[in-house]
Amino acid sequence: MRSARQRLHTICGHVKWSKEHGRVNLVQTRSKVLSTDNINPFVKNMEYAVRGPIVIRAAEIEQELKAGKSKPFSDVIRANIGDCHATGQKPLTFLRQVVAICTDPDRLMDDPKYPADAKSRAKRILSGCGGQSIGAYSDSSGVRVIREDIAAYITNRDGHPCNPDNIFLCTGASDGIKTIMKLCMTGEGGNKRAGVMIPIPQYPLYTATIAEYNACPINYYLNEDNNWSLDIPELKRSIQEARSHCVPRVLCVINPGNPTGQVLSRENIENVIQFAKEENLILMADEVYQHNVYAKGSAFHSFKKVLTEMGPEYQDIELASFMSTSKGYMGECGFRGGYCEAINLDPDVKVQLLKSISAKLCSSVSGQAAMDVVVNPPTSSEPSYPLFLKEKEQVLGDLKEKAKMVTETFNSMDRMSCNVVQGAMYAFPQINMPPAALEEAKKRGVPADVMYCFELLEKTGICVVPGSGFGQRPGTYHFRTTILPPVEKLKEMLERFRTFHEQFLSTYK
Amino acid sequence: MRSARQRLHTICGHVKWSKEHGRVNLVQTRSKVLSTDNINPFVKNMEYAVRGPIVIRAAEIEQELKAGKSKPFSDVIRANIGDCHATGQKPLTFLRQVVAICTDPDRLMDDPKYPADAKSRAKRILSGCGGQSIGAYSDSSGVRVIREDIAAYITNRDGHPCNPDNIFLCTGASDGIKTIMKLCMTGEGGNKRAGVMIPIPQYPLYTATIAEYNACPINYYLNEDNNWSLDIPELKRSIQEARSHCVPRVLCVINPGNPTGQVLSRENIENVIQFAKEENLILMADEVYQHNVYAKGSAFHSFKKVLTEMGPEYQDIELASFMSTSKGYMGECGFRGGYCEAINLDPDVKVQLLKSISAKLCSSVSGQAAMDVVVNPPTSSEPSYPLFLKEKEQVLGDLKEKAKMVTETFNSMDRMSCNVVQGAMYAFPQINMPPAALEEAKKRGVPADVMYCFELLEKTGICVVPGSGFGQRPGTYHFRTTILPPVEKLKEMLERFRTFHEQFLSTYK
Repeated sequence: MRSARQRLHTICGHVKWSKEHGRVNLVQTRSKVLSTDNINPFVKNMEYAVRGPIVIRAAEIEQELKAGKSKPFSDVIRANIGDCHATGQKPLTFLRQVVAICTDPDRLMDDPKYPADAKSRAKRILSGCGGQSIGAYSDSSGVRVIREDIAAYITNRDGHPCNPDNIFLCTGASDGIKTIMKLCMTGEGGNKRAGVMIPIPQYPLYTATIAEYNACPINYYLNEDNNWSLDIPELKRSIQEARSHCVPRVLCVINPGNPTGQVLSRENIENVIQFAKEENLILMADEVYQHNVYAKGSAFHSFKKVLTEMGPEYQDIELASFMSTSKGYMGECGFRGGYCEAINLDPDVKVQLLKSISAKLCSSVSGQAAMDVVVNPPTSSEPSYPLFLKEKEQVLGDLKEKAKMVTETFNSMDRMSCNVVQGAMYAFPQINMPPAALEEAKKRGVPADVMYCFELLEKTGICVVPGSGFGQRPGTYHFRTTILPPVEKLKEMLERFRTFHEQFLSTYK
Repeated sequence: MRSARQRLHTICGHVKWSKEHGRVNLVQTRSKVLSTDNINPFVKNMEYAVRGPIVIRAAEIEQELKAGKSKPFSDVIRANIGDCHATGQKPLTFLRQVVAICTDPDRLMDDPKYPADAKSRAKRILSGCGGQSIGAYSDSSGVRVIREDIAAYITNRDGHPCNPDNIFLCTGASDGIKTIMKLCMTGEGGNKRAGVMIPIPQYPLYTATIAEYNACPINYYLNEDNNWSLDIPELKRSIQEARSHCVPRVLCVINPGNPTGQVLSRENIENVIQFAKEENLILMADEVYQHNVYAKGSAFHSFKKVLTEMGPEYQDIELASFMSTSKGYMGECGFRGGYCEAINLDPDVKVQLLKSISAKLCSSVSGQAAMDVVVNPPTSSEPSYPLFLKEKEQVLGDLKEKAKMVTETFNSMDRMSCNVVQGAMYAFPQINMPPAALEEAKKRGVPADVMYCFELLEKTGICVVPGSGFGQRPGTYHFRTTILPPVEKLKEMLERFRTFHEQFLSTYK
């Protein structure tokens, strides 16, 4: 850790956390109880690139710009995190109306400014809350009527029944993923640790959680040459190699993909389920981007639906699927709304699951209310429908256009290739790194993608995350960028990017 | 676990989770990957009595009443959990106004119904949010301006400066407590586990978290004979006994006390700090009830203030203090707002702390907004002040009256004694259990306090939590009740309680 950080200083000079080291303690009466030598080693092992050193440096640059320091750019463009509203997306009117009424029903339930359908949604939610207040704790698994609405949404989406008792609300999908993963740990060390299969590249929550719980990551590589497809032989290779040093238990799939933007075909999903069955694995399906599918010919298929339709011999597979208010067309990250549907769990295990979440009491009830609107939006006969539809289509239409623009622009650059962004909110282009750049990075003691991204930030103000934060095949170099900035801003960003990239190539030619 | 549950069935007959066992799987194609024999053993060890079997049974009785089943009572009174709004407390108008404006500024920022001070609070909060939206992620540690407001509150409360960089927002205080405790783990098993000193009786979050992280609880008993005082010799006894089987690292104090309702004197706090210094412990001060002090002569003293005023040789002690939106006079449990102030951490450890919370992205921004109102309420010159003051004083005045009523009523019952409820929201009376009741409980294979509380629930509809869920000296029997029901309801509850208790004593005399 320490040396990696020191190495970073050589390229970016002034990462925030180094500053505190200089503090002088005049009164040093005892040594600290906690030091980095003795804190929880699993916490120390956690990494979370999406909020790592490059993002800290981006915040510093913003402060420098504010303080009037001259830079070759006038603003920082944060393309490091899928934070829709921060990059200019407007909240859905209907969602905010419902949550506002839930928050202040005394003043808003009879306010003529608010439409009847928003009021009836709020009434339904409040009827499920203790004392009709979102200030009361909900059941640990969430407000009952909201779980019923989620079950109706899933039933309608898949054409197969969903039981509200299989659903629990969580503090964003992240919290649900951590809860299920925690349950799957063996509690033992060495070669008896639980093995968790994750795609590489992956969303860093997975490696961070695996580190936190002292589990063993089983990395399977997505096939970049086939638009990041999930190949069964690669799953087999990775699990076979892992058996000697852990107990494989869980297979994580992110669909649509983060950071890779692919959308799995139905056949691919069937093969994955087949594999999970053969290898006796629990499936964790991260489906938070289920509304974010852009490419022609691509469609979202839920693991639950596919599994259900594969016939009776698959009806026993343990599957947990995750959804969030943070993505899709709503992008309500700050509400920390999310849910998990867990099916086919042993009933006694389900008891343990519910017990484990009860110590956290419940997830934010306003986040639960936001989740309710996502699964129960205005229907075509309701007064809020036209505006809702317009806002939703605007966001998804823009994202579709931006997905195409990003793919095409990066592919038009020399020594850069980018798979089609079929879904989600990210591109993960590969840089064919010039040998001289590789040499320079080696000299500086940093991965070449980290060097590239820091130089990009310093010279253009664009903040993207190095591929090494997500994992990549050794010897390849990528970065993740969101496709979120507004169309005009994104165009400008891609132009700044192109200019930088050309300069980079000519520097290291 | 299994046998404890089965034993419970003998007294309450139909705990919900047993129902699922009867489900028949017609297609049993493979055994489950996860069973209670192989899930995370630390999760299995967790217990959380406040939402345990008795609460599940209470919900069932509510359903039975709804379905028209005849009972000797017409409603269930939930005195098991500090859920203020669920028991009838009204939300603070100002708090809800600010959060509603933050939620729907497009419609409410210019609404003449909303007062200027609520609007200026909302504006300040939104100015700190990405895209001026509470739907954007905040920094991992929380919205900067909210952390500044918290720092100003602490500075003002203690008369000593507070640095906003020492504060992070969390999903209720529970989340903050878990975060700090996680950091303090050794990551090792056996006699190298981290030891965490906790009061007995304790709030079950502590034992649940200690179990989850495979730490070692070091139980120190509060002195019931001296109004649940925290005696230093008892701290010394418990840590000395623990040294052989763990590495003592953390001392947890709950002040005002949960479930015990005592308020520590300043001198007592000084002695505790002195002890922590001598024994090289990190202090965790659960101060979520800092606004809930009722008894004459009692006052809240923060650990930060006392530590700061003890002189330079104490300025290096690592202290984490926790606060919440859920308690006090606001009782906004559902928002899951909370903060932690952690002082004197090694700067490198602080980096690790911030990294560990970054993988969770951030706590609910609406919960953060609610927290902001708690630390930055209307001042005497602002338009919302008179109503705010009236609402606040009403709640705290009622709680004071109820604290007195509960103490006096329980003390007036035969074979029952109750320490003065000086603060917080709970009483923890002791039942001097008749020998015949002890015998009957032994026969049924349940602790006598559990038998008592289940009988109370079945016969009166009153739901309180058996003392064994919090810990108590062996051979003593308690229960925890909240003092939250509205005054008239609480009177009725205490009368039902008295009748039951008299019957219980005459049955087992």
